[in-house]
Amino acid sequence: MAAKKTKGLVIVYTGDGKGKTTAALGMALRAAGHGKKVLIIQFIKSFKRYGELKFVKKYDCGIEIRSMGKGYVKIKGDRFPIEEHKKAARKAFGFAREQILAKKYDVVVLDEINIALDKKLVPLKEVTDLIKQKPPDLHLILTGRGAPKKLIQLADLVSEVKEIKHPFKRGIPAQKGIEN
Amino acid sequence: MAAKKTKGLVIVYTGDGKGKTTAALGMALRAAGHGKKVLIIQFIKSFKRYGELKFVKKYDCGIEIRSMGKGYVKIKGDRFPIEEHKKAARKAFGFAREQILAKKYDVVVLDEINIALDKKLVPLKEVTDLIKQKPPDLHLILTGRGAPKKLIQLADLVSEVKEIKHPFKRGIPAQKGIEN
Repeated sequence: MAAKKTKGLVIVYTGDGKGKTTAALGMALRAAGHGKKVLIIQFIKSFKRYGELKFVKKYDCGIEIRSMGKGYVKIKGDRFPIEEHKKAARKAFGFAREQILAKKYDVVVLDEINIALDKKLVPLKEVTDLIKQKPPDLHLILTGRGAPKKLIQLADLVSEVKEIKHPFKRGIPAQKGIEN
Repeated sequence: MAAKKTKGLVIVYTGDGKGKTTAALGMALRAAGHGKKVLIIQFIKSFKRYGELKFVKKYDCGIEIRSMGKGYVKIKGDRFPIEEHKKAARKAFGFAREQILAKKYDVVVLDEINIALDKKLVPLKEVTDLIKQKPPDLHLILTGRGAPKKLIQLADLVSEVKEIKHPFKRGIPAQKGIEN
């Protein structure tokens, strides 16, 4: 197969383990180190005190984050009807498409978009179309458990993060400053 | 089991997939966002142009990186005898222990230490002893494929990153600014 040498990669982090969003954040940090412009759009998270949000507020480092979700969908603590989640996710995706096609960024992270796909908040067809239309040099990172097969087929690099051991199950609550 | 509420976590990222070091970098970014001090010690990597090194040079953000390895061990391109790798790894581990016990950091990442363990560059016993001796609030992150069982037993959170699809295998070379 002919190498596509300077093309932006489509990268998927999926699976049930911890580390998908953090891997995307790490890639963002690396890219920013090389002077690249990074946009992270969070499809599900709404928690404003996440360390990454604090970080990009403190340091003007070429990483922008837009937290556009309404929290986790259909789990305990979800205060919104599904239509509200859908509205938020569609808005986030419209914004993502606009920013990607405007060629303003070198790296775009669609954080937890796989959950939005799984919960049918965003149609898969629109995401696969966007992947095909994206600027060739733009790296696109999609995270979240339950990545659809079609997405995996289209991606260049796919890592599945598997949970081997999780502290919540041992009675240890989430540790601020490291897990969120 | 009683919850150990404010204790620092021992986190392991292992497996053959991409995303272990980047997940640790993402955790570092999050922690730094919360104002925590982070030290990353790279046991294997020697490549000075990694994005993360450039990043921490540019932004004084509470993340320090010490690249103390001599490159990948016993693979193509390895220019050093095993004794040289051992010397470097032992020096890196001595430094790690000193910094951890000095309580100067909130988060310490021992990047690729699992490879150093696998290649017998550092004795497992010394690593498990250090885990037991570390300050209770310090979060310790250990990365690299092939994490020993004993380490997994001691850890609070373990994620295995599995390779589902890798661009090298499709003839796409590593992309600067995103993969290194």
